[in-house]
Amino acid sequence: MMPKKNIAIVLLSGGVDSATCLAIAKSDGLDCFALSFDYGQRSRSELNAAKKLAESYEVLEHKIIHLDIGQLGGSALTDLSIEIPKEEAAGIPPTYVPARNTVFISYALAWAEVKKASAIYIGVNAVDYSGYPDCRPEYIKAVQDVVNLATKAGVEGKQIKLETPLINYTKAQIIEKGTQLGVNFADTVSCYQADFDGSACGKCDSCRLRRNGFLDASLEDMTTYK
Amino acid sequence: MMPKKNIAIVLLSGGVDSATCLAIAKSDGLDCFALSFDYGQRSRSELNAAKKLAESYEVLEHKIIHLDIGQLGGSALTDLSIEIPKEEAAGIPPTYVPARNTVFISYALAWAEVKKASAIYIGVNAVDYSGYPDCRPEYIKAVQDVVNLATKAGVEGKQIKLETPLINYTKAQIIEKGTQLGVNFADTVSCYQADFDGSACGKCDSCRLRRNGFLDASLEDMTTYK
Repeated sequence: MMPKKNIAIVLLSGGVDSATCLAIAKSDGLDCFALSFDYGQRSRSELNAAKKLAESYEVLEHKIIHLDIGQLGGSALTDLSIEIPKEEAAGIPPTYVPARNTVFISYALAWAEVKKASAIYIGVNAVDYSGYPDCRPEYIKAVQDVVNLATKAGVEGKQIKLETPLINYTKAQIIEKGTQLGVNFADTVSCYQADFDGSACGKCDSCRLRRNGFLDASLEDMTTYK
Repeated sequence: MMPKKNIAIVLLSGGVDSATCLAIAKSDGLDCFALSFDYGQRSRSELNAAKKLAESYEVLEHKIIHLDIGQLGGSALTDLSIEIPKEEAAGIPPTYVPARNTVFISYALAWAEVKKASAIYIGVNAVDYSGYPDCRPEYIKAVQDVVNLATKAGVEGKQIKLETPLINYTKAQIIEKGTQLGVNFADTVSCYQADFDGSACGKCDSCRLRRNGFLDASLEDMTTYK
């Protein structure tokens, strides 16, 4: 009998970072469950991208959780009355979704307990990121403490490790790493306001980061722009 | 003009503890938003109790968030294939819902950011509790660190304080405190498998804690038993 593999929950948004993160979890030899969220984000094609990626990486199960977080308002990604900026600006941008990563990780934690996973993979990144507070290493460290204390597994001494393999990578390095691991970036969507078919605006923060990442990595981006 | 009151998000399950917690937040002089969750728990009458309490305390808004957490399985409170124990037992009981408080607090945090709240009130209790890891003071302390690091407010130096006024109270002390503040405990539901009208089984862990609490406090419990 084959030895049983360890299990990971991978947060999969359908973008460049989470796709690379899933590829890393697989190359780390883990059996993966993929978790995506439908939280009323403008870009539905992100979820289609997540579905494609989950299939091509043969995850054990891909769950798309419907979140009411969009209802709470406060972000340009879920609230149509707030405009998505077309230029870079200082500070935390209006595309920030309140407590998003905290909510996402909470769900991943719940599923990790049920599936007896040993790790949660999340593609947060503190270099070429959009200035969101919940992408910083000190935030992840604090969440790891909560994970250790919150769970039955933690009480029983079995740690569920938060894995953030991309946290110190530039966008170009993420793209290089993903390319090495065979990620098909044509299947990923980054744009905050992509069309249903995945074509991107080319102007939002996320499009700018992606485009510059591919340029810096000297790799071709197959993204279709509107 | 009246000075503007500070705002609190109060987690309101509809039980004795959260009802008392809401009464405390009001007596602390805060304007309250109440947050409840529909996560496929067996006891729907809990949510009706929450609605009644939110109305009688004139909260600014009461939101019931639909959570997919029940779908993830793993708890006797959401998974009908797991039996609710009728007797007390050692360890973490099967009624434990994985990562429940972490998910609840994440949502409260998102709403707190949007509403610019200065506090989140949660009626967790580390004395007469059911042995859940996410009710312990060390857990709450770790979550406060996450709250400080996760948010735009935190980055800007405005703390959202996690208030756990009941954490060191026995169930009897909670009932005494609530009674002093005029809580109508007839409007609360504790039973894990209460009927739609709120009548309780009298046998589950939560019923036992409630019954003993009223006995110890020498106060009458208006609960109807099946």
